[in-house]
Amino acid sequence: MSARILDGQALAKQLQQEIRPEVAAFTAEHGRPPGLGIVLVGNDPASEVYVGSKLKTGTDIGFRSDLERLPLTATLGETLAVVERLNRSDVHDGILVQSPLPKAMGHDAEQRVFDAIAPEKDVDGLTPVNAGLLMQKRATLVACTPRGVIELLEREGIPIAGRHAVVVGRSDIVGKPLALLLLHRDATVTICHSRTPNLVDVCRSADILVAAVGRPGLVTHAFVKPGAVVIDVGINKVTEPAVAQSLFPEGHKRLDLFRSKGFVLAGDVHPDVAEVASALTPVPGGVGPLTIAMLMKNTLRAARARAGTPV
Amino acid sequence: MSARILDGQALAKQLQQEIRPEVAAFTAEHGRPPGLGIVLVGNDPASEVYVGSKLKTGTDIGFRSDLERLPLTATLGETLAVVERLNRSDVHDGILVQSPLPKAMGHDAEQRVFDAIAPEKDVDGLTPVNAGLLMQKRATLVACTPRGVIELLEREGIPIAGRHAVVVGRSDIVGKPLALLLLHRDATVTICHSRTPNLVDVCRSADILVAAVGRPGLVTHAFVKPGAVVIDVGINKVTEPAVAQSLFPEGHKRLDLFRSKGFVLAGDVHPDVAEVASALTPVPGGVGPLTIAMLMKNTLRAARARAGTPV
Repeated sequence: MSARILDGQALAKQLQQEIRPEVAAFTAEHGRPPGLGIVLVGNDPASEVYVGSKLKTGTDIGFRSDLERLPLTATLGETLAVVERLNRSDVHDGILVQSPLPKAMGHDAEQRVFDAIAPEKDVDGLTPVNAGLLMQKRATLVACTPRGVIELLEREGIPIAGRHAVVVGRSDIVGKPLALLLLHRDATVTICHSRTPNLVDVCRSADILVAAVGRPGLVTHAFVKPGAVVIDVGINKVTEPAVAQSLFPEGHKRLDLFRSKGFVLAGDVHPDVAEVASALTPVPGGVGPLTIAMLMKNTLRAARARAGTPV
Repeated sequence: MSARILDGQALAKQLQQEIRPEVAAFTAEHGRPPGLGIVLVGNDPASEVYVGSKLKTGTDIGFRSDLERLPLTATLGETLAVVERLNRSDVHDGILVQSPLPKAMGHDAEQRVFDAIAPEKDVDGLTPVNAGLLMQKRATLVACTPRGVIELLEREGIPIAGRHAVVVGRSDIVGKPLALLLLHRDATVTICHSRTPNLVDVCRSADILVAAVGRPGLVTHAFVKPGAVVIDVGINKVTEPAVAQSLFPEGHKRLDLFRSKGFVLAGDVHPDVAEVASALTPVPGGVGPLTIAMLMKNTLRAARARAGTPV
């Protein structure tokens, strides 16, 4: 058996095609495009890549996309001031502060900056009020990665209602919101984490298994019930040769990539899961591109809500 | 085997004893007692009983407890005006609007009234911002019934970390917040509901099983792994003789009570579960009294937060 590969890249492109005419219609009606403001503090290489991709996608589909760049030495107050300015801006409907903020800004800086985003512009769904509305099944702006996973399952015709979904990972940004989204679609949902004693057994009871823990290859074929659908949210930079060799067999092109570049990206799901799962998201090219597509959907939704158009 | 009965009534009394000197200290420091304002619209008999009990408990432990009573014919606007007045009141730290509101007020009246409560006075933990803070593990004011269940488990020395907790029911007021509280205490948590196909099997995998669905006697001994801890959140008014007879054997005093009064209160857990569970909350006298005790704790907490005292 070899799992069907769920192509997140292709779906993300399709979603962008679907959004484009809606963006054009919004722009025609309101005399301005939906606007996204992204705040980037410092120059973390991975953040630069993510932000670049978000800006480019936004521009491609017709958004106004602005980068507010602050130096690595920026203070919390300076960062909050930028968020406040975007909150007041008429031309920005969505605000995204790229995580992580520099460590020097303080341990609670991220929380304070996220909390400062106006809920109606909080396209990452991270403010308490948006998290609470999600819990109460009445959210407009839902965290992008969980929302992307649901979009993928639905578009691929994978039933959720009545299925047992097991989510490994309990973060505020992925694990918990995704568990709620699955629950609200009538899955029976189990949330596991680092303190779950019998993780393999719990995962093996899943019809839909989601890994969102940030540990490369944690979920091996032993974790997967034959025929289950496996969603890999992890995206880990593997730099240890032993880890790379445990993930990819000798001669595999990803192992060659590792040897030439000194690192390789890997999900939380071991490639050998493809032998038992019925469907599987790849890393890269699975959930990642959908996160950006859902950011676009959220920004359009925020723009419509701000403009008083039905979302 | 016969389950240990977890006496919520006794624990509630103990909690009240513990709170009383803290209330006295607050009153001495601030020149006023913590204040609770309860809004009751109409005269539903069950609501009258609950509200009476909350007011009495509040007064007993030294709170200012005020009842804001509105007639059955009150409009949504009139109810919102009372909430707004309590929001502005200096002497009220906690606001509770007794559910249900009269049906004539409209299908979304309860949501709109709850949403109008100032989050810092929302001692039922029902506003979106408080639900979101709970999801993000940083809540001050948590829904009283779930918080009471956790208090009971902790005081009874029942371990949560590493255990499999199964919550049957996914309401905003009990099921979902309780699942989060258990998760944040390192349980592996499964949420089941009316669309869970193999409910018996899932429940039988629980170390801690919580029933919060509002169906008398739904959870029978077949649902319970021998030695599991069973928490019964349901409180159902049974008026059908067949249901009463399915719950209590001939000669049982609760069946006699049913026959003399025409109804009996029963939980979601069938009494026969006592033969397999290691511990069990009774109905009445289990979770119910703890809900009121936690309302008192929340009100004191809200008072301290408003006064700038560490909570």
